[in-house]
Amino acid sequence: MTAGEALSVYLQDQATAFLRSLRLHREASTDAQGAEESLAAARSLRHAARRIGATLHTFRPLLDQEWTEELRPELAWLSGTLAREHAYAARLDRLLGALHRLSTPAPVPAPADAPAVAAGSAAGSRPAGRERWPRPTAPRAGDTRAGQGVKKPAGHLAVGAAKAAALLERQLTLARTRAHSAALQAFGSSRFHAVADTVAVLASEVPLHPARDTDLKPLAAAAEAQLAEAVAALPLLRAGHPYNAEALVHGLAADTAPEAQDAPWLKVRSLLRLHRYAQEVLHGDAPRDPRIGQASQALDLHREAADAATAAAAAARTPRIAPATAYALGVLHADQRHEVEAARFTFQQAWLREAVTAP
Amino acid sequence: MTAGEALSVYLQDQATAFLRSLRLHREASTDAQGAEESLAAARSLRHAARRIGATLHTFRPLLDQEWTEELRPELAWLSGTLAREHAYAARLDRLLGALHRLSTPAPVPAPADAPAVAAGSAAGSRPAGRERWPRPTAPRAGDTRAGQGVKKPAGHLAVGAAKAAALLERQLTLARTRAHSAALQAFGSSRFHAVADTVAVLASEVPLHPARDTDLKPLAAAAEAQLAEAVAALPLLRAGHPYNAEALVHGLAADTAPEAQDAPWLKVRSLLRLHRYAQEVLHGDAPRDPRIGQASQALDLHREAADAATAAAAAARTPRIAPATAYALGVLHADQRHEVEAARFTFQQAWLREAVTAP
Repeated sequence: MTAGEALSVYLQDQATAFLRSLRLHREASTDAQGAEESLAAARSLRHAARRIGATLHTFRPLLDQEWTEELRPELAWLSGTLAREHAYAARLDRLLGALHRLSTPAPVPAPADAPAVAAGSAAGSRPAGRERWPRPTAPRAGDTRAGQGVKKPAGHLAVGAAKAAALLERQLTLARTRAHSAALQAFGSSRFHAVADTVAVLASEVPLHPARDTDLKPLAAAAEAQLAEAVAALPLLRAGHPYNAEALVHGLAADTAPEAQDAPWLKVRSLLRLHRYAQEVLHGDAPRDPRIGQASQALDLHREAADAATAAAAAARTPRIAPATAYALGVLHADQRHEVEAARFTFQQAWLREAVTAP
Repeated sequence: MTAGEALSVYLQDQATAFLRSLRLHREASTDAQGAEESLAAARSLRHAARRIGATLHTFRPLLDQEWTEELRPELAWLSGTLAREHAYAARLDRLLGALHRLSTPAPVPAPADAPAVAAGSAAGSRPAGRERWPRPTAPRAGDTRAGQGVKKPAGHLAVGAAKAAALLERQLTLARTRAHSAALQAFGSSRFHAVADTVAVLASEVPLHPARDTDLKPLAAAAEAQLAEAVAALPLLRAGHPYNAEALVHGLAADTAPEAQDAPWLKVRSLLRLHRYAQEVLHGDAPRDPRIGQASQALDLHREAADAATAAAAAARTPRIAPATAYALGVLHADQRHEVEAARFTFQQAWLREAVTAP
């Protein structure tokens, strides 16, 4: 198989997946019971759109330039628009789960290591239990009922936690509802139809650059080299020292402080995705580098926790909230920033440990 | 040297140190410039009182029972009274240091590992810089000036941090002033003079039990066994997983939640002290077990951070504070609970690592 053929197979597979997801999404949207299916279809649509966009980027010298440069921003717009609703829902889930964990009454202390955690992922060793404060499964426009489903345990602190949960639920449900409307609008837009038409063409024929059929490997290697360079710029030595308190430092300095220290990690997350998809083009689904899965998971956690911490800080700036609510949001912000730090530690462990043992 | 002789030498040394500290303290108290010397003298007085009390406890079968049981609670009263002033000062120092760290504007991000931390103690790897918000060096009765020396950087979050610092400074300086007065009163009391008289007798003659001169080792071994039992009851497996989020769990549940999970660690801290002082009786100052120093330090940090977290939570319950202040106190509380978790991790590392390599 030539490079052009291999690239065509991958892009056609992803384009087919894109079109199938689109059909499922349309069917689910006309079905009153289809909320879950609709979300799942949107997820696989984003999944395919991301892979097509990344492949157009990494292997652009093999493809028709003009066509590539028109489609890529459109795919980015589409997956960005679809991702927002999911992100708000996940953020609310994470924050309510954390508040639940923080405000559950302490059990009678168990003797030595009875509640022992499994060895392995540090960030994953949290006690589960995100179910007590469920988010509404189907958001409705204008649905801003505060605190529904929130039990209010006794005590000053617990009241603050319950009020914080209600406030976050109100704010993030509203944001999610807006994102949902925006996604529905996008699906009905002529801009979206143009993207879908282009992907439909891609499913049958990939516009390869007429004059070139070079090897895929050097282009995939370039993506990997960019990733390696970005990883080398991370403060991994510090991240490998547990409890270095880096993620929360400057946390009360200014509203934009965490973003500066998070940026290099988010950059690595993007480049890791490009690398992962390039490896899929070359070797199929099974990853050759065992670090990729764990490292990607850690950086996804990093982003989710960082966004959740920002949402908690933003909620604390709501006018006229009670001090107990603000206090709970402060604890929650710090808790999520420590999850950010934990994710960096997990990434460092995954990346360096496997680098030694990998062939 | 018989057991009784060895015990007498240690107790007489400590009694002499006690009396010397007392003399220095009196001299410093009449000197207007002697605030620092007075604190140092009070510290070594506590130091000696703790060691005498612990030795009376561990080796009580070798000593006159009645005499031992009269002196021990008096020594505990004395060192408790003297410790309080120091504890409030240290707590304020720690909390202002943490707020300073949290509200310093972020520098331009340095490239890979430039601000590398030294390998070793995780809990000790924090950026220093507790000097910007100095606490008043000599507390005065009624001195409750708020926020003196506190710079107020711009921004909503930073204002909250500055207000939180002012509030903590006011509350802890007041508590410290009261503790200072209580200590001065104690030094002038007949109860104290009775303790000093008893220690003066101890410096010249130790009231050994007339009928016994058994070996010191079984008694020291019993103290060590009690320590080992308490350590075995600690959730060390969990503590050894970085970022287990245990110290903050239930942090918003009720005001007394952390105390329950901290209790076994505080118990180990007490027993570790008894063990350490028993080892001093047997082997002198140089510790035979290299774990003791690091483990003690970690548990001291544990206690200080736990108390600081409690003080931040208590300050947040002050009526009529601004939400921004409460938010900063919430972040601060969570930060200190994470220092508690870091201290447990450090203890676990120190205790288990050295147990393998020690002879």
